[in-house]
Amino acid sequence: MKTYLDCIPCFFRQALEAARLATDDEVKQREVLNRVALEIPKFPLDATPVEMGRTIHRLIKEITGNQDPYAELKRHYNELAAKMVEKLKPLVRNADDPLQMAVRIAIAGNIIDFGALSNFDLDRSVEESLRFDFGVFDYEEFKRQLNASESVLYIGDNAGEICFDKLLIELMHEMGKKLIFAVRSVPIINDATVEDAVWCGIDRFAQVIDSGSDAPGTILEHCNPRFLEIFRQADMVIAKGQGNFETLSDAGRPIFFMLKAKCPIVARELGVKTGDIVLKLGGNATS
Amino acid sequence: MKTYLDCIPCFFRQALEAARLATDDEVKQREVLNRVALEIPKFPLDATPVEMGRTIHRLIKEITGNQDPYAELKRHYNELAAKMVEKLKPLVRNADDPLQMAVRIAIAGNIIDFGALSNFDLDRSVEESLRFDFGVFDYEEFKRQLNASESVLYIGDNAGEICFDKLLIELMHEMGKKLIFAVRSVPIINDATVEDAVWCGIDRFAQVIDSGSDAPGTILEHCNPRFLEIFRQADMVIAKGQGNFETLSDAGRPIFFMLKAKCPIVARELGVKTGDIVLKLGGNATS
Repeated sequence: MKTYLDCIPCFFRQALEAARLATDDEVKQREVLNRVALEIPKFPLDATPVEMGRTIHRLIKEITGNQDPYAELKRHYNELAAKMVEKLKPLVRNADDPLQMAVRIAIAGNIIDFGALSNFDLDRSVEESLRFDFGVFDYEEFKRQLNASESVLYIGDNAGEICFDKLLIELMHEMGKKLIFAVRSVPIINDATVEDAVWCGIDRFAQVIDSGSDAPGTILEHCNPRFLEIFRQADMVIAKGQGNFETLSDAGRPIFFMLKAKCPIVARELGVKTGDIVLKLGGNATS
Repeated sequence: MKTYLDCIPCFFRQALEAARLATDDEVKQREVLNRVALEIPKFPLDATPVEMGRTIHRLIKEITGNQDPYAELKRHYNELAAKMVEKLKPLVRNADDPLQMAVRIAIAGNIIDFGALSNFDLDRSVEESLRFDFGVFDYEEFKRQLNASESVLYIGDNAGEICFDKLLIELMHEMGKKLIFAVRSVPIINDATVEDAVWCGIDRFAQVIDSGSDAPGTILEHCNPRFLEIFRQADMVIAKGQGNFETLSDAGRPIFFMLKAKCPIVARELGVKTGDIVLKLGGNATS
């Protein structure tokens, strides 16, 4: 997905929020905004918004010295999500269609996104995700491909959210799938890293790897060879969240994108309303 | 009022909205955002947000060649407001306190502000303004000073809004006040100019002058000598809207600010909630 002009004001909102988390020093916060501003004229709109996100958060680390401004928030949401997911687990077990229920719960967790939102209502996201219709729902194809697949690469998104993913991962594990769960290589916004995936216990059901990405998405040119090999060879790829959609929507292989459309620009790109839940088969170079 | 870091993302939102009104050419819209970005590091935070507004809209005129992107919106809101005000007029005539009713109606019109908001509900603003409590309500002092004043300078804000001001202007005219109504010298966002004031018929009750300001507020250093003389010598000054508050809050003379607090930063500066209506005595160098 390309960057739209509407993304530019949002880059500054995101930079300011992150800078304030990283430091109380207003001079440094201002310096972050100044440096982001100087990047704007150089930034090509055919790059994805995630690439500017990468630049912004690299600048914040450089200027403030804080390598993980979201560390505390990530811990908090991992713990909160783990508790919520324990309560949601019976919903999957008792559902007429456990797979669909696990998909809905995984998408509910995608609200925990400090890149797109500065505040959100997790309980409401769960409630809506269980009850609402999907904006895009390529579920029959999802089931068909999942049944036909041996290996599944699941590209996670945010800390906390990955606890919601775990129910779906566990279900696919029980279906006998060979699962690889990929996360970012370094802390970026509140995106999950290997540490978070292990904390949530995803490593009991999947091989956990880092993608090589230091961006809030999956920029293939920056990914490591191991991830790229799995990405090309896996029978099926599931990618969570807006950042993975923005960076992989033209990746040249089939990918099931699972997300909640939190920003109006991503929603428009997907042809859905802001707030809609989405399970979309995409990823072809022509899509 | 100084500029806060929170204003910086908002400058880009405002620049993009105005650039899109000024031209359909996305290359020029992008050029506007690039040029605004280059201004950010140079902009002193002790300047008012209005000064950046001035720069942004000067750049838009320069890059797009469109000297009045809001011309059609201004016309539309003048016409809409004139019709609404005809219906509201009896409310003032029949009120227990016609002056307070006219103040409330004048503030209701302050929602027509394309600098602060990209969309708004004018009917709802009127309804709330008639019914809600004020966030700040220096009304006793307002009445006292008005009764004691011969000359009143009323600094208007936006096209459309000035039709709402007219009821209060007319009432003060009937009270025998010598009224001067000041507007911007050139089109800037949807701020009213002399043409709008005359269209609304304010010149029947007040001497209409332009302040010399080419900014969406009243930057005294840029005002013309006639305005400055009246500003210093008028017995009473009333200033409408956020832009006039931002630029005159430290002007060194008593001013009654009448506005609807539309942005969270101005609301915080005034100690009120976003959406609150305000009649505040301020303007002293020490306030």
